[in-house]
Amino acid sequence: MPPLDLTASSIDLTRAICDIESVSDREGPLADLIEEAARAVPHLTVSRHGDTIVARTTLGREQRVVIAGHIDTVPLNNNLPTRFETIDGVDYLWGRGTVDMKAGVAVQLKLAAELAEPVADITWIWYDHEEVSEAKNGLNRLSQSNPELLAADFAILGEPTRSEIEGGCNGNLRAEIRTRGLRAHSARAWVGDNAIHKAAPILDILAAYEPRNVEVDGLVYREGLNAVGITGGIAGNIIPDECMVHINYRFAPSRSAEEAVAHIHELFSGFEVEIVDLAAGARPGLDAPIAQHFVAAVGGTPMPKYGWTDVARFSRLGVPAVNYGPGDPIKAHADDERVPLAQITDCERGLRAWLTGSAS
Amino acid sequence: MPPLDLTASSIDLTRAICDIESVSDREGPLADLIEEAARAVPHLTVSRHGDTIVARTTLGREQRVVIAGHIDTVPLNNNLPTRFETIDGVDYLWGRGTVDMKAGVAVQLKLAAELAEPVADITWIWYDHEEVSEAKNGLNRLSQSNPELLAADFAILGEPTRSEIEGGCNGNLRAEIRTRGLRAHSARAWVGDNAIHKAAPILDILAAYEPRNVEVDGLVYREGLNAVGITGGIAGNIIPDECMVHINYRFAPSRSAEEAVAHIHELFSGFEVEIVDLAAGARPGLDAPIAQHFVAAVGGTPMPKYGWTDVARFSRLGVPAVNYGPGDPIKAHADDERVPLAQITDCERGLRAWLTGSAS
Repeated sequence: MPPLDLTASSIDLTRAICDIESVSDREGPLADLIEEAARAVPHLTVSRHGDTIVARTTLGREQRVVIAGHIDTVPLNNNLPTRFETIDGVDYLWGRGTVDMKAGVAVQLKLAAELAEPVADITWIWYDHEEVSEAKNGLNRLSQSNPELLAADFAILGEPTRSEIEGGCNGNLRAEIRTRGLRAHSARAWVGDNAIHKAAPILDILAAYEPRNVEVDGLVYREGLNAVGITGGIAGNIIPDECMVHINYRFAPSRSAEEAVAHIHELFSGFEVEIVDLAAGARPGLDAPIAQHFVAAVGGTPMPKYGWTDVARFSRLGVPAVNYGPGDPIKAHADDERVPLAQITDCERGLRAWLTGSAS
Repeated sequence: MPPLDLTASSIDLTRAICDIESVSDREGPLADLIEEAARAVPHLTVSRHGDTIVARTTLGREQRVVIAGHIDTVPLNNNLPTRFETIDGVDYLWGRGTVDMKAGVAVQLKLAAELAEPVADITWIWYDHEEVSEAKNGLNRLSQSNPELLAADFAILGEPTRSEIEGGCNGNLRAEIRTRGLRAHSARAWVGDNAIHKAAPILDILAAYEPRNVEVDGLVYREGLNAVGITGGIAGNIIPDECMVHINYRFAPSRSAEEAVAHIHELFSGFEVEIVDLAAGARPGLDAPIAQHFVAAVGGTPMPKYGWTDVARFSRLGVPAVNYGPGDPIKAHADDERVPLAQITDCERGLRAWLTGSAS
C-alpha cells in the first residue's frame, strides 16, 4: 500500500483512509501506515502499543491536550470503496467509516503533521478496537499500560458531532428486571402464577417515567429510561414462570454510577434487579480556560453528548473532555454512512484556529 | 412381536401396550397388533385407515356409542420400559403412555373383545397422531374421510380423568397482540417511540382480568386468560419498534368460537390482534338419557374438562361427548408419568357396568 500523504487535503486524506478497510480486529495495515507517516514528522515523538499509535509534541508548553480518534469501523455492508455524491446540493463522501470516524482521524493526522508549534503540547492518539468490547479497546488498554500518555489538561475525542462541540457524555446503565411465577398448564392457569402478568407494573413504571433534563457545567443533559427488550414464555399452553425486562438508563454526568444504580433499585423496589452494564458519564469540563479558548476558536454553542463515548475514560482520569468531529452521529453505523465535506474542513479550521492561537 | 392378549388383565394389557413404544409418527407396529387382535374377535367389524383402527358391533341396537382413544405418546425421556412401583401405599404403573393414554386404550381393547352383547352398539376407535398437529390427527382425518364412522348418540374419549367423568371441554383461543413504535438509538430515545412501553396496558388488562366460572349443562367451566409469551427488543441500545404479547384464552363451551374472538377484540380494542389458533369447546351433553345411564353406572359427580380435547370433534359433529379414563392429567407428558392401578380397574368396571346394563 502507498504511504499516507499528510499534505493532501483533509477530504482527500479522509477518502484514502476510508478506502483502507479497518473493521475491528483488522486495524493492522492502517495502523502501520499511520505509524510510518507519524514517524516521518520531525516534531513528533511516536510510540506504538498494539495497533494504537501515540504521537506527542514535547515543546515544554504549560498545558497539554490529548486529541484522539479510533481507526476501526463496524463491519462493511457493501459500502466501500467510498464515493463522492451530492444530495440536495450538499456534497458528501459516502462509505463505511466516513462518519465514524475516519474523517476526524484524517483531520487530526493532517494537523499533527502540520502544526510544529501549537500553543499547547499535543498528544495525538489513534487507537484500535473502539467498536467492540471494553477489554479490546485500545484507549482502555493504553490507560492501563501507559496512563502517563493520557495525562493532559483537556482532551478532545474526534467522534462525529457535525463539527460542533459536544461536551462530556451521559452515563449508561443496563439492567435485567425479573419476575418469577409458577408454571402450569394454561388449561388450569389457577394452579400456576403468571410471571408475565406480574411484569405489568414494570412496564407501567417505564411508560409513566418522566426523564430529567439536567444542567451540568452549563450544558443540559437529557436522560432516558427505556425497555430495550422483554422476554417471557415457554409454550403456547404453559403459564410462564419467568419474565425479564431489559432496561437501559442513560443518566446525566452529574449523577454517579452508584447513584444511578440506587435510582433504578428505588424505582423498581420489590423487583429482582440485576445490573448488567454500568458506565459513568463524563462532565463536559467546559469551565476551564483552555476549554473556553477552544469554544471561542470553534464558535457556535456547545451541546451535551447524549451517547456514551470514550470521553468518559478521560473523565475518569480527571481530564475534562469533549467530542468534536465531522459527521452526523445518526449516520454512524448506517449503511448509507456519509459525511458532508464542509464538516471536514470546518473541523480542520476549528482545531487549527485553536491550536495555533489564531482565534483565541 | 407377540400378539396382544386381550384376555389378560387390563393392568397387564396396559403394561404390554406401553412397552411397545409408539411416539407420534411411529404408531405402525402397535396399530398392526391392535388390528390383528380386533380382527380375531368375531363380533367386531374392523376397518383400518392409516394407523387408525375402527372396530364396530352391528347388533342393530337403538343407540350407538363411540369409545375412542389415541395410541400415540409424546417422546420418551428415559421412561420406558414401564415398571410397577408403590408410593405412599399406592400401587402405580410407571412409564411413558401409562397416563396419556394407553391405560384407557387397554381397558377399551379388553372390553371390545369381551362385550359381545352390549346394551348399545359400540364403535371402538384407536387412532394415531393425537399429540401432534391437527392435520395429522387420526380422528380428524377419519372425520373427513369417513364421517359415517363417527355417527353416534354419545361418545367417550379415554383421555385421563382419574377415571371420573369430565364432560365436554373448554374452547381454546391463542392470539398475538402487537404494539408498534419507532426504532431509535437509546441514547436519543425521544427520537423513537417505545413499543414495549406501549404494551403496558395489555399486561394491565391481563393482570386485572377476572375469569368467569360458567355453568353449562350442570357443569361449571372455569375460564382463563393468560399471557403465555412476550417478546420485544432488538439490542441493548435500540428503542424497540415492536412488542408482541402471546395470549391464550380458555373459554366455556357455552361461548362460540366467534363470540370468543369478539370478546378478545373488545378486551384489547385499539390494539393489533391476530388470532393464531381457535378451537370451540364442547358441551358435556350429560342431559341425554344414555349419558345419564353412563353417569349412574360410573358413579361420582361429573366434572368439567378444562383442557381442550378431541371431544370437541364429536361436539362439532353433533355428538355429545365426555372424557373418561385412568390417570391424573397432571401426570400426562410428565417424566414421571404413572397411573394408579386402581384407576385402571375402576375405569374397566365403570364402562362394563354401563355397557352391560348391570348398573343402570
